[in-house]
This record gives sequence, C-alpha cells and structure tokens, in this order.
Amino acid sequence: MESTHDAGTITLRELARRCGAKLDGDGEVVINRIASLESAGAGAIAFLSNPKYKSQLATTRASAVIVAPRDAMATALPKLITADPYATYARIAAIFHPRSVPAPGVHPTAVIAASARVAPTASVAAHVVVGERTTIGERVQLHAGTVIGDDCSLGDDAILYSSVVVYDRALIGPRTIIHSGAVIGADGFGMAEQDGRWLKIPQVGRVVVGADVEIGANTTIDRGALGDTVIEDDVKLDNQIQIGHNCRIGAHTAIAGCTGIAGSTVIGRNCKIGGAAMISAHLERADGTVISASTGVFNSIETPGVYTGAFPALPHRDWQHVASITRRLRALLGRIAALERKIRQEGE
Amino acid sequence: MESTHDAGTITLRELARRCGAKLDGDGEVVINRIASLESAGAGAIAFLSNPKYKSQLATTRASAVIVAPRDAMATALPKLITADPYATYARIAAIFHPRSVPAPGVHPTAVIAASARVAPTASVAAHVVVGERTTIGERVQLHAGTVIGDDCSLGDDAILYSSVVVYDRALIGPRTIIHSGAVIGADGFGMAEQDGRWLKIPQVGRVVVGADVEIGANTTIDRGALGDTVIEDDVKLDNQIQIGHNCRIGAHTAIAGCTGIAGSTVIGRNCKIGGAAMISAHLERADGTVISASTGVFNSIETPGVYTGAFPALPHRDWQHVASITRRLRALLGRIAALERKIRQEGE
Amino acid sequence: MESTHDAGTITLRELARRCGAKLDGDGEVVINRIASLESAGAGAIAFLSNPKYKSQLATTRASAVIVAPRDAMATALPKLITADPYATYARIAAIFHPRSVPAPGVHPTAVIAASARVAPTASVAAHVVVGERTTIGERVQLHAGTVIGDDCSLGDDAILYSSVVVYDRALIGPRTIIHSGAVIGADGFGMAEQDGRWLKIPQVGRVVVGADVEIGANTTIDRGALGDTVIEDDVKLDNQIQIGHNCRIGAHTAIAGCTGIAGSTVIGRNCKIGGAAMISAHLERADGTVISASTGVFNSIETPGVYTGAFPALPHRDWQHVASITRRLRALLGRIAALERKIRQEGE
Repeated sequence: MESTHDAGTITLRELARRCGAKLDGDGEVVINRIASLESAGAGAIAFLSNPKYKSQLATTRASAVIVAPRDAMATALPKLITADPYATYARIAAIFHPRSVPAPGVHPTAVIAASARVAPTASVAAHVVVGERTTIGERVQLHAGTVIGDDCSLGDDAILYSSVVVYDRALIGPRTIIHSGAVIGADGFGMAEQDGRWLKIPQVGRVVVGADVEIGANTTIDRGALGDTVIEDDVKLDNQIQIGHNCRIGAHTAIAGCTGIAGSTVIGRNCKIGGAAMISAHLERADGTVISASTGVFNSIETPGVYTGAFPALPHRDWQHVASITRRLRALLGRIAALERKIRQEGE
Repeated sequence: MESTHDAGTITLRELARRCGAKLDGDGEVVINRIASLESAGAGAIAFLSNPKYKSQLATTRASAVIVAPRDAMATALPKLITADPYATYARIAAIFHPRSVPAPGVHPTAVIAASARVAPTASVAAHVVVGERTTIGERVQLHAGTVIGDDCSLGDDAILYSSVVVYDRALIGPRTIIHSGAVIGADGFGMAEQDGRWLKIPQVGRVVVGADVEIGANTTIDRGALGDTVIEDDVKLDNQIQIGHNCRIGAHTAIAGCTGIAGSTVIGRNCKIGGAAMISAHLERADGTVISASTGVFNSIETPGVYTGAFPALPHRDWQHVASITRRLRALLGRIAALERKIRQEGE
Repeated sequence: MESTHDAGTITLRELARRCGAKLDGDGEVVINRIASLESAGAGAIAFLSNPKYKSQLATTRASAVIVAPRDAMATALPKLITADPYATYARIAAIFHPRSVPAPGVHPTAVIAASARVAPTASVAAHVVVGERTTIGERVQLHAGTVIGDDCSLGDDAILYSSVVVYDRALIGPRTIIHSGAVIGADGFGMAEQDGRWLKIPQVGRVVVGADVEIGANTTIDRGALGDTVIEDDVKLDNQIQIGHNCRIGAHTAIAGCTGIAGSTVIGRNCKIGGAAMISAHLERADGTVISASTGVFNSIETPGVYTGAFPALPHRDWQHVASITRRLRALLGRIAALERKIRQEGE
C-alpha cells in the first residue's frame, strides 16, 4: 500500500509550513513518502481521516502522522494537526507526487490544422489531431492520440489524456482534466418518429465545460440539440458517465461512475450523486442534494436531502420470495382491507 | 439556447416549400436560424411540439413558428402548419445546419492496407487505419484515428467519427453513423469453466449492421460466437450501450443510453427501450414493445406493451423503511394469513 | 449460424485425438467447421451442451456431434464423447479458427520511446505509442492506435486490441487480452471537500493485472490512490465494466458487462457477477459467490451463495400499482398491527 515513487525527502517542519498545518513533536524528522497507517514504515507520513482506522494509530510504523485535533492525544508520534486531515493528505500527496509535466512542443506526428492556434508552452503528443480554428491554451497537455475538432477552445493548463475525442465547437475551461476515452460533444439522441422510421434531429448546440472540471475515463457528454450542454466549474465526473444533450450540471457537483443523466436534465450545485444512478428529472432547485448509488430519479426533486431507491441484495431464495410477494402486493392490500371490513362489521 | 452557426437566410415561403408544410401569414419574412420558443429572437423560426410549452407561443419573439393545425389559432405570427411539427423542425434544422462534408481523399498519415479498396469520394482523415481486403464505400467519412480491421465492408455515405474501432469482418450498412469510441466486433463474453479455470471460446461470428443505423459514443457491439450479431436497418443506439454476442436488434428499434443487452437476446422491430435498462430475455415476438428506463427484463415478453420495473427515489429515511419492510414481506404475508385464519375460526 | 472462415479439413479421429475426447462411430468422416446443431450441414461438427437443445440431435444435418456420455445413445451420428461438450467445443473452435497472428515488427508510424524495450517477436501496429522505460514481452500484439504509458510492463503473449490506453506504471501479465477502448490506470475518483470546493487527491498507486486475464471493450480500471488496484490471474471482465481505485478482484472471477465496482472493494476468487450489477461492499471472504444481474451489493457478503436484488419488469400499469403500494408499505404494516391488536383484544 505504499507508493514506490518518491519525490525526494522533506522535514516534517517544512511539510507543516507548506500545508499550513500545526506541527507537534520533532520537526526535524525526515519524511520521504505518504502511506496508509497500516502500510507505512520508517520515513512515511500517514493520516487518520476515517475514525474506523483510529486503532491503527497505536500500531503504525509511520515516522509521523496527520491527525485532527481530537485525535492528537492518541499518538506520541511527531504529527501535523489540522482541521481536515484528508485535505492535508491530499496536499502532501501532491508534494511527494508532483504531476509529471511533459515537455512543451508539438510532436512531429501530430496533425495541427493550419488555422489552429497552439500556445508555445502547450505539449502536444504523438498522433494528436487538432482541427481548424481551434485554440489550445498555455501549458495544455494533449496526450497521445487525442483528437480535437474544429472551432474548439481549450483553456490554460487543461489536461487531456490519451485518446480523448472532442467534437467541433466545444469549449473546455482552464485546469480541466479529461481522462482517456472520454467523448465530448457527440450528437445527442434526438430523432422524430415518422411513419415507423426515424428522422434525425440535427444536434447543433455545443458542449461548454467550465474550469477545474474533471471528466473520467470513457465518460460521454453529448452536445446540445439547439442550445448547449453545460458542465459548470469544479464539477467532478467519474468514469463511464453518460450526460445527455442540453443537460446542465451545477458547479461543484460530483457524480460517481456508471451514472446516466437523461437529456435536458438540470442538476443543482454541490450535489453528490452515487454510482450507477439514473436521473431523468430535474434537481434544479435542490442544491446540495445527495442521490444514493443505483438510485433512479424519475420525478423532479425540489427539496435538498438524501434520496435513495435501491434494494440491497438478498440470498437468492429470500429475494425470490420478496419479489414474488411484491408482485402480489395489490392482492395483499385487498386481503388487509377485507380483514378490516370484517373486524369493523363484527364490532358493529 | 440559440445556435450560433447560421447557414444563410431563407424566406418562410421557401421553407414551407422545402418541408412540404402549409404556409400561413407573411411568406416573405426572412428566417436565418431555428431556435426554441423561449430563446428565439428576430430572424428565428421556433416550433411547438410538446404541449407543455404552448403558453410560450404568446410570448415568443420568434419571427415565425412551426405548429400543428390544432395550435394554428393560438398565434398571429407567420407560421408553418404541419401534422408533425417535431419532424418539420428536424427538416428545417437540417436546412440551417447542413452537415459539413470533409473533402474527399486520404490523409497522408492514414495507413491503408494494400488490398483495401477505398472509394475515391471517401474522406479518410489523419491517423486512420484500414485493414486488408476492406472496402470503403462512396462518400464514406472516416474521422481521425478510426481503425477498421481486415475484411470489413462500409456502405456508401457511412460516417465513422474519430476513434471508432471496427474489428475484422464487420459489415456496416449505407448511411450508418457511428460515434466516437464505439467498438464494433470485439469478442463476446464466452468461456467454458473447467477445473475452476476459464477456457476461452473463440468468437468467430461477425457483426452485421444495417442501413441508416446510428450508434452512440462508446457503445459496444460484440461479434457473434458462431453466428452473427445483427443490428437491423434504422436501429438507433444511444451512448454507452452494450450489446452482447449473437443479439439481433429489429429494424427501427431505438435504445437509450447505458442499456445492456445480454448475449443472444432477440429484440423485435420498432421497440423503444429506456435508458439504463438491462435486458437478458427475448422481446422477439413483441414488436413495438416499450421498456421503461432502469427496467430489468429477465423473462421473455410475448405481448407488446409498456413494461416497467424501477422504483423512483424516496427521501432516504422513507426508503429505508420501505426496503426494510420489503425484506420482511414474507413475514407480513404470514401475519395476514394468521389473521385470516383467526377471523375465520371466530366466524365458525 | 455457421462460420464462413474454414481452416482446412480434419478427420473426426484426429479431432478426437487432439481434444482428448472418445471417438464413437466413423473416425474417417471429414470435418471442416464447427456449427450449432440447428445450423450445421454436411462437413460440420455440432455440439450438445445445453439440454434444452437435445431434441435437435435427432434433426441436425451435422456430419458429427460432440455429446456427453448421457446423450451418446440419443444419436447414431459419428461422435465425440466427452465429460464437458462445451469445453470440447471451445477446443475444436480454436482448431478451426486459429487466432491470426500479425507479423512481428514495429510499424513505421508507431512511436516507441528511446528507453522502451520491445521484444523482437512482438507486433506493434500503426500509430501505436509506447512510453519511456516500458517493456513489451515476446509475441505481444499491440494493435493500431493503442497507447502505453511510461514504466509499464506487458507480459509475453499479451494482446491489446486497437485504441487501448494504458496509463503510466501499469503491469499487465502474460497472455492477458485487452479489448479496444479499455482504459487501464486512469485516476481514481478521489477528492477532499473543502469549503464547498473539491481538492484532488493525487492517485499515485498502480494497476496490476495478472496472467490470462481478459478485459472487455471500453472497460475502465482505475489506478490505486496510494496502493494498487489488483486484477488477479484468470479474471474475466466483459465490456463496459468500471473498477474503482484500490479494488482487488480474486483469481478466476468473471464479471459480466456494465457492472460497476466501487473503489476499495475486494472480491473473492471464482465469483460470478451478472451484468449491470453494482457492488460497493466486500465479497472478500466469500469465494465462489454468485451475484445476479442488475443486483446491488451495498453490504459485505461473508457467506458464499447466490445473491439477487432485482425486480423483473411488469406491464406498466401493474408495476405502477406495485410501486405505489410499496411506497406505502409502512402504512400497510401499521394496518396489520392494528388488526392484530384488535383481534387480540377481542380474544381477551
């Protein structure tokens, strides 16, 4: 459970300074990596964020730990004390594992349209394709095999990993990260039925992605039909999410993997949506709403809160009984009503 | 919500003529784009298809509207009257947004096998790969990075967007559109269990895709194990759909995103399948069946109709009660039966 | 339903010898392909594995059949008798359809980092990219457009089809097959919430994939956050599966398409997981567990067995009744309790 890629060594005092955490104990202890409490050894700093691991504080072989004030007394190890150990862990992990930055420049096998503008500090890898009139910002990373269409704009410091596809006219904000296999701006699923056949509705809107967004591997975001599909700032999308045309996902909302968002759905800000959810109704006025994993949302939610709709697995035979009785619930309801009538009659 | 890409201007009279719609009002009004009722401004034509937007007819700033005969009296604006405003909208959108057609020819970075035959009117973009003995029809578009295997055939006017993969021996019909990241013809999930290990079953069938099909981004269609996987004409598949080996999807059927179709499933014609459905049983003899979103079909359906099986989300605490009681339904059934016995005994 | 790609002809006697099956009947009959009982014609060998096709033994036009001992008397055709006809079918299919092996060597359009080591027997197709210090084993196949990051290792005889992406530092075992569009090693979904914004947790672990694994098209496996995500030997993953960071999937486990496995989930050995399942709890100590399709596992399973949690579809109106009553189950429970109280009081 330890990372094998070290990025030099640093004293605990220096880590405290760089993270804004309070140092407690020997500040001269030298740290060379971050690890979990359980796997840490000498030289590692570990962290306690989830209380269920608190007992590991006593047994960890880490050289130092990151703890909340309430846990500071629970260990004699040199420590960083901080209101949010998980965020401090994130900061220290970034210190030990700085993102490797590819050298600027355009690989000779990349194909850049004559009218595209690529910032000189951008890094464009092998077999990348950039379309006409597209602009690529400063320090943007386009990894191998990524294809950007015509008339796109990628903000400064955006990172597109290998084999991303961005269709024509998409806008991607600064510092946004898009993982491999993601497809931004394919046609939405729009067609009119006529005489038993389908007539394609041209999908002429765009995808507009804000700043500091992260889009997971193989996630798909369709372009708008007439207007735009909009992903606001700091939205975090896991892998294999499908977002239909003309959706709007509010700022800071996080959506876990395998979730589907049907076309034209509007989701508020700071929502959290569990994995494999399926949402076809608005969460527009319900900022901060939490949708549990595997839950279907088919009616709009107006009141923020936690919403759930999935049954956990049972042993197969038990579930068969549950499923069978559930299908007969209407008859059950009738039997209860009949009993009530009888009791009432007898009481009369 | 307005498209910013105009394709010139055109009089309402000329639009009526080209769509076969009835003109009502000033035919000389000049239209330069299509828009929603709500977002339209001067120069735009808007449409009323969904009755819930009817009140917007009174307030739209559009220069003209597309309406059904029943709504013609509801507005004094110049208008096109048509039995199916949504289909007329599709046609007019196509007039204002003609699909841009890349120039014919093969990009110098494309790698075309010596024995492949590419029509001279086809457009083959950067880094495309075409395998041995494959034939590429007239006016086919292969966008950047798409890979076509050996012994494939792509019908005239097919469009494969960037980073599509087509494995060996697949047949793709004319005018079919395949979006980025789709994978056509990977091995089906077939293996025999032997002594606790898996033995791979060679997947030697093909994928056969008909004419006028549309396949969404990151959708996967596996090749047949022995026979073929068949997608009939005018089937419309949204993004992130998985179709197992040896399935047959009937003509004109439309399937929304994130749906899984298990191997060997046969689905009839003109079916409509909602998003995130999971189908592992036949809809073979039930043409025109509708499956709701998030619904599991585990038993074959023989009678056309609408089928559903998903619970909508509830506030978490309410759902916990529901889930908990559901698990105890068998006990509940027992309590009702006991009450019935008691009442019966008392009645004797 | 017959494969059109023959691989020469062979006598039944020779097939028996090569599969270790018992020959019964004329060993000189010449076989040139494998087919289903229903579609087979002269020259084909067919197989009976699923008992529901037993009646086809009497009518098949195959030249020979593969049967279990219990079915040997049911046909007078020349036959191979074997304890496991399905596995023998797999072996014979492999004889008639040997995997085509691309010629060794590196295509001139491939971009191989100077410090990478590619075995001379490996086959590296057009537009492949291989990163720094990566090692590619003997007879490995990298199909067109696949991208391998820095510091990866691919074992002997691994096959990566077109447009696979492997991020930095992943290890892929020998004979493992990865289908197109799969993404191995993208960042896990890890972030800390701070002041309503998200702070990215660096994902510094690896993906470690064992030997004889198969990974389906567009499946995604995230790298570990601190430790590794591990896919053990002989695991079989269908298409469009999502595996979160730090998961461990035990040897010989098979997972069907569209399934999501949440981060840090540990799944035992020899498990079978149906399509579109969603697993966010451990199956760690329950080797051999079977999870049905569309089933959610939100609580850890300690006892091996078959677990289910999905309702099959009903006609829409019937389902509406079920869903509506289910939401009111708490009230129903109350009514039953009230009846019981009343009966009890009356009995007193």
